Amino acid sequence: MLDEFRIINKYFKREPKEGLLGIGDDAAVLPECPPGKRLVTSTDTLVENVHFSPDVTAKSLGHKALAVNLSDLAAMGALPYCVLLSMTIPSVNADWLQQFSDGFWSLANRYSVLLVGGDMTRGPLSITVTAMGYVEKDSFLARSGANVEDDIWVSGSLGGAAAALRHKISKDKFYPNSDFSRLEKFLNYPNPRIELGRKLVGVASSAIDISDGLSKDIKHLLKASGVGALVNYSSVPCETELNILRSDVKVKALILAGGDDYELGFTANPKYAAEILEISKDLNLSCVPIGKITGEQSLKIVDESGEKIELDESGYEHF
Amino acid sequence: MLDEFRIINKYFKREPKEGLLGIGDDAAVLPECPPGKRLVTSTDTLVENVHFSPDVTAKSLGHKALAVNLSDLAAMGALPYCVLLSMTIPSVNADWLQQFSDGFWSLANRYSVLLVGGDMTRGPLSITVTAMGYVEKDSFLARSGANVEDDIWVSGSLGGAAAALRHKISKDKFYPNSDFSRLEKFLNYPNPRIELGRKLVGVASSAIDISDGLSKDIKHLLKASGVGALVNYSSVPCETELNILRSDVKVKALILAGGDDYELGFTANPKYAAEILEISKDLNLSCVPIGKITGEQSLKIVDESGEKIELDESGYEHF
Repeated sequence: MLDEFRIINKYFKREPKEGLLGIGDDAAVLPECPPGKRLVTSTDTLVENVHFSPDVTAKSLGHKALAVNLSDLAAMGALPYCVLLSMTIPSVNADWLQQFSDGFWSLANRYSVLLVGGDMTRGPLSITVTAMGYVEKDSFLARSGANVEDDIWVSGSLGGAAAALRHKISKDKFYPNSDFSRLEKFLNYPNPRIELGRKLVGVASSAIDISDGLSKDIKHLLKASGVGALVNYSSVPCETELNILRSDVKVKALILAGGDDYELGFTANPKYAAEILEISKDLNLSCVPIGKITGEQSLKIVDESGEKIELDESGYEHF
Repeated sequence: MLDEFRIINKYFKREPKEGLLGIGDDAAVLPECPPGKRLVTSTDTLVENVHFSPDVTAKSLGHKALAVNLSDLAAMGALPYCVLLSMTIPSVNADWLQQFSDGFWSLANRYSVLLVGGDMTRGPLSITVTAMGYVEKDSFLARSGANVEDDIWVSGSLGGAAAALRHKISKDKFYPNSDFSRLEKFLNYPNPRIELGRKLVGVASSAIDISDGLSKDIKHLLKASGVGALVNYSSVPCETELNILRSDVKVKALILAGGDDYELGFTANPKYAAEILEISKDLNLSCVPIGKITGEQSLKIVDESGEKIELDESGYEHF
């Protein structure tokens, strides 16, 4: 039978690394921190029926549990180093574990992320990852730091994950004649914007991971920075499938407050616009300006005619 | 209503610390690691109906979720620095949150542990803590390192938590005439042996947190060290309530394999015996030798007459 130790050895333990005491003791001991660096850390839990539905594949879950945490490091401009993985699973299924670990390692290996420890227990399906990375001592991104007149940018496209989810949940009510299947990759395999975060250090004045929906997360950034913003809905990027529907109120809500996007929202002095477009080109990742920081202490999102868009601002509620 | 942000601000956010970016951004940024130190990290999840029963108080849960993680740091000889707290709770109850945070902070403050981040979501009750601490570069405790002829020691007393639990679950079958109520503190408020772990660095040759039961955890230590052990059951310390029953087979199993003890098991060259007893006296924490490391590659536990004790070795199974 697969007990905890066999599972860890088979699916999660990898070659030991010089200078690191990883899986197999009471705790992991990391190598000495490089001088001038600081450790950045974040944790996120994915719970079945809250963050994902029971029909999600184990591979996607292994990917996403790691991705959502790496996305938090990306928003700080950090280089990921290692993670801890705490799994609560209702039963042991070798196939499921193989798929889960495939999804996990496929992403972890892309960023040379080490798995240094964790925990495994039985119970209602839930995955907690704690990610750790490094930044230069005084050079990292934070939510605070946005200045009046800064441009507001977002990477990638928004609303895709939320659209795929709504369509899956209620196909008959949510644009029954649309094909949103291509958008499922945004829901199941989000890409943490690690490289972008790294390159924005010293360029962006503030940054945030837009996982709770653009409107809600930009408000967090504004509050931390003590400023306001004017955002042009028509500039907010989305995939073709949503773009043709973008004037519909339901689609507006998905793009502006749908959540689960794992893109970066960031601000920068206009003098950096060309540099950001260069970074965007280098990474083959779209970055577009969607508005301006204002001194008004509030977020105003307007449509093409300048009219304010009122939103149901619940965003992507996990709580 | 109490949303995630209000809950965090009210119950979990404390005064900011110089040089630390804590709760409120996408991730925490720790101060630069002191030169010559290494970061030690561990994570543990407590799941309702697996690690604790629904009638456990929120105060005890707040304490224990932190304690079991600090205990892992203690087993490495680490000084705790900070933790991340991921809570999955079925509903928001201000009273419950107040109690939980009271239990959490009461222990955290004892060791000046900072809460630097976390996550809060709705779902089946489950708490994951990730703890971080520091050790000197090459001076920490590990499971490997035990040598033949070393003494085997344990701190505190064993079996108390398991006895309290069994008695609570099936009072009519498990020593109905005994009063184990004093032992409930071992179940609900375990004390991580931080100070002991710190003082054992440079003295103990190996150490482990005995949370899965003495027999199981000593085996982990033996395997990591490539040695065997002879343990004298009569030397294994337990509380008075169990001591008067210690020849009973059910009590033997509790003391040797009950689990949930959060004491330290460690080995040391016999030349350190006096020093360990001095540490024990200084800390007002009993430490007793219970056996010897052997070259036999197996664990043998014997009773007073030298007869081998055969155990149901499932220990404290969370999985």
